[in-house]
Amino acid sequence: MEILAVNSGSSSFKFKLFVMPEEKVIASGQIERIGQAGSVTTIKHNQGEKFQRKDNIKNHKQAVQILMDLLLELKIIHNYSEIDGVGHRVVAGGEYFDHSVVVDDDVIAKIHKIADMAPLHNPANLVGIEAFKKILPHATSVVVFDTAFHQTIPEENFIYSVPYEWYEKYGVRRYGAHGTSHRYVAGEAAKLMGRPLEDLKLVSCHLGAGGSLCAIKNGKSFDTSMGFTPLTGITMATRSGDVDVSMISYMMDKLGINSITEMVYMLNKESGLLGISGVSPDSRDIMQVAHANHRAQLSLDIMIKDVVKYIGQYAFEMGGLDGIIFTAGVGENSDEIRAAIMDRLAFLGITINEEENQKRGETGIISGDDSSVTVMRIPTDEEVMIARDVVSLTHKEG
Amino acid sequence: MEILAVNSGSSSFKFKLFVMPEEKVIASGQIERIGQAGSVTTIKHNQGEKFQRKDNIKNHKQAVQILMDLLLELKIIHNYSEIDGVGHRVVAGGEYFDHSVVVDDDVIAKIHKIADMAPLHNPANLVGIEAFKKILPHATSVVVFDTAFHQTIPEENFIYSVPYEWYEKYGVRRYGAHGTSHRYVAGEAAKLMGRPLEDLKLVSCHLGAGGSLCAIKNGKSFDTSMGFTPLTGITMATRSGDVDVSMISYMMDKLGINSITEMVYMLNKESGLLGISGVSPDSRDIMQVAHANHRAQLSLDIMIKDVVKYIGQYAFEMGGLDGIIFTAGVGENSDEIRAAIMDRLAFLGITINEEENQKRGETGIISGDDSSVTVMRIPTDEEVMIARDVVSLTHKEG
Repeated sequence: MEILAVNSGSSSFKFKLFVMPEEKVIASGQIERIGQAGSVTTIKHNQGEKFQRKDNIKNHKQAVQILMDLLLELKIIHNYSEIDGVGHRVVAGGEYFDHSVVVDDDVIAKIHKIADMAPLHNPANLVGIEAFKKILPHATSVVVFDTAFHQTIPEENFIYSVPYEWYEKYGVRRYGAHGTSHRYVAGEAAKLMGRPLEDLKLVSCHLGAGGSLCAIKNGKSFDTSMGFTPLTGITMATRSGDVDVSMISYMMDKLGINSITEMVYMLNKESGLLGISGVSPDSRDIMQVAHANHRAQLSLDIMIKDVVKYIGQYAFEMGGLDGIIFTAGVGENSDEIRAAIMDRLAFLGITINEEENQKRGETGIISGDDSSVTVMRIPTDEEVMIARDVVSLTHKEG
Repeated sequence: MEILAVNSGSSSFKFKLFVMPEEKVIASGQIERIGQAGSVTTIKHNQGEKFQRKDNIKNHKQAVQILMDLLLELKIIHNYSEIDGVGHRVVAGGEYFDHSVVVDDDVIAKIHKIADMAPLHNPANLVGIEAFKKILPHATSVVVFDTAFHQTIPEENFIYSVPYEWYEKYGVRRYGAHGTSHRYVAGEAAKLMGRPLEDLKLVSCHLGAGGSLCAIKNGKSFDTSMGFTPLTGITMATRSGDVDVSMISYMMDKLGINSITEMVYMLNKESGLLGISGVSPDSRDIMQVAHANHRAQLSLDIMIKDVVKYIGQYAFEMGGLDGIIFTAGVGENSDEIRAAIMDRLAFLGITINEEENQKRGETGIISGDDSSVTVMRIPTDEEVMIARDVVSLTHKEG
């Protein structure tokens, strides 16, 4: 069967077309600048062939139509009905969804209802869902939530120490994000370690432009560093992670800013590595100048310390630690940052296999044979998780 | 020599009168409701004798005059000149002060300058300083800062991941609090462990109505859970500890509140144990009903988890852990809360000496002989630290 995994933004979507259950990717790509002048459609197929075209695409429905026509034209598929299911990434599932579900009116209504928790993402995700449903009415439509994996977090780890009514009436709690990624790499880690996931205490470090850590205890999310929104936790490319709300109040006074929304914007867009270093939100750029630039070096030191401190926090919350996983852009590709984190964990008896650590973007154990904790580099694959969930729900449907 | 340790609020002050270097308390007490109707002066002396009187006291200067007259009248002192020094607690010292100092015009100016970081406390502290200087002009006047001990925290642990200019221009950083308490108990812990403080990695848990943890590495503060202000860190009696700023923005919208000051007030006064439990800010009240009240039990579970997570964070940041100290109201007196925290640390090889743990308010090791980490209960004594600092600075002066 063929399954599309889709990630829709407000003016773009990305897709991957899988043959399942073989998990073979037969095409991937994206359509960008939907609704703007000069939309760009990119499709990769045939193991490396790249097709690109510029159009003026009015809306997501037209974009999906163009994508399907191109899949036919490029002979990637032979007719629409080959596509048995479409899985959509949705950012916020609130407390409604603790696993992926087949889309129906009730599901759509719930995604709408919690849109004010993810105002930039959920409405855009919905536009993509509707567009694919119209063009591919026969395909099973599934939604996969970034938050769903974290619904197993116990109350003591998700409730904020604020008036409890804020949770009861307004849904204020820790929801986390990157759930699909943490879920995927946890499964891969168990395979790599040759041990049942249900027996393991893992910390997954998803380090990309956005970054979050997840404590995974016996296969379930036990705690995570992103909170009500993806603003909190570790220092990210442009996001602040944890700060003192009183400091925000003080800075609003100093800067003459009256709007909390404006402050949240600065914390999301002008903070993190960029804010500290003043150089770039990208750790690769920062590393190039860090030897001669105090703020650049400081920004890396702080990010590394944040990862170390959350690993410590989660090891103590879980009461032990069997494995650490590095994933996502920085986690998969920066041997320097992985090594810097592992160096700070030497006191635990963690050792580095230098040769393995220097590899990039491939799955492998990067700690030494004598290491007290198994440290792994595992490329994440949210799309294959989406495709798997579609298959599993399509079978249930049928 | 006789030294007064003073803690001034806006309408009150507390004092302890020491004979130094014996560290013997010959009187202690407070004057409350200064500037209000029915001011109350309380003095304890002669090992338990208690004197109390109501007056109408206009201002701090008059209050100090009344105190001194009463000290003479009660024959606690024979003349003013016996008092060689007065040490004042000051909440915020900013980056100006990394140790206690003798008061001069420059010191006063600096305390004024940073008053907007501690608007409720620094101005009140200054009123007390001025009043004692006028009545006891011959005595050395010393200020002891709550933040000074934390000035050794390395930059990677005190800089927030926000635009660096906020630090450079406006002094935004982690300052911490309870520094005098953490400094005192760290010294006592080293004595109790029979090891040099300079060799130890300690986590001090100051658990009172306000609570903070401090990582003390080689005798120096290395990190602490309170931040720019005392709002952050662990769940406290009525303070929230760490929260997501985006959540605050969302709640302002939901509650129709435009003022961040109002939100900060709610986070300081209506959150923490009180906010979660809805029962009380006092863990003793909460414990009485927790067996039958989900929110009450939850509030305790969250506070305990917060302490465990910060101990983990600090152990990992320091790269090891030799000792844990419990101090302040809850830390000194609640064997249940200490035991609950230690139970969660059993995975580390921490064991409890049940008999020792059940004692209250006295110094002692409460972990078992076989424990991997020494856990201690140490009553804090900020006043004796203040008196010691005055002695040390008086000698330097003389």
